[in-house]
Amino acid sequence: MAYTANPDRDRAAIAKVSSTLLQAVNASDAPAVLKAWAADGTIMPPHHLPVHGHEALGAYFRDLFARHTFRFAFTSAVIELAGDMAFEHLTYTATAWPIAGGQALEDCGKGLHVYRRQLDGTWKLIRDIWNSDRPAEPHSPGSR
Amino acid sequence: MAYTANPDRDRAAIAKVSSTLLQAVNASDAPAVLKAWAADGTIMPPHHLPVHGHEALGAYFRDLFARHTFRFAFTSAVIELAGDMAFEHLTYTATAWPIAGGQALEDCGKGLHVYRRQLDGTWKLIRDIWNSDRPAEPHSPGSR
Repeated sequence: MAYTANPDRDRAAIAKVSSTLLQAVNASDAPAVLKAWAADGTIMPPHHLPVHGHEALGAYFRDLFARHTFRFAFTSAVIELAGDMAFEHLTYTATAWPIAGGQALEDCGKGLHVYRRQLDGTWKLIRDIWNSDRPAEPHSPGSR
Repeated sequence: MAYTANPDRDRAAIAKVSSTLLQAVNASDAPAVLKAWAADGTIMPPHHLPVHGHEALGAYFRDLFARHTFRFAFTSAVIELAGDMAFEHLTYTATAWPIAGGQALEDCGKGLHVYRRQLDGTWKLIRDIWNSDRPAEPHSPGSR
């Protein structure tokens, strides 16, 4: 790549993408969420098939925000750089309020963001996967 | 690092770690599972707190294998190299049989393995996170 290694700058840029993403989710702003994502990114949500690419990601987030408003917070975030890729180990708390009314849902858990440096030097999300710390469901082999 | 870049060799070595891990889980062999893991690795299972480091990982897998036998299969696996780190995007199917008897549990989903090249040149797992494709539970914000 044409960009000199500068770990501090890279970490700051990635942390900015992550916080912008969080704000966009909490604002139910699908176009702002998409700005954090690479065109070929794949989100890997619990209890849902993977969603690949900007068009499908846009539909996923619009649908999500049509049903709930969210308040996600990252309770810890550690970024590790690996050349033109990076990963961020996160823990989160989340509340979801159904748009149709009803009880708010609470969750806490952990996740990984994977980023790739783009040709223009910006960092974009290419994978996002998370899961709940809360007790196991009967059809989740591998959990307690 | 002292190891010349050789993507084909790295991919083959990582694929070997991944398949060895799978066999070890399916054989309920906790010591063999640990051989795939870096000393400072963290597994991030659904419905469970993260488990960090060899000692805790050993206890986690011994407990898991005391309660169920497993048959995991990777239905797809794509490895991306990033210097001394690598990511493997997986899809899986899994069956778990309770040791105490009762109904087998079926699951399918996706996950990420993150690997780091060790000082001796071997690749070890440093993160493993996955989640189910199956329908949402009521306390999982962000899923459908």
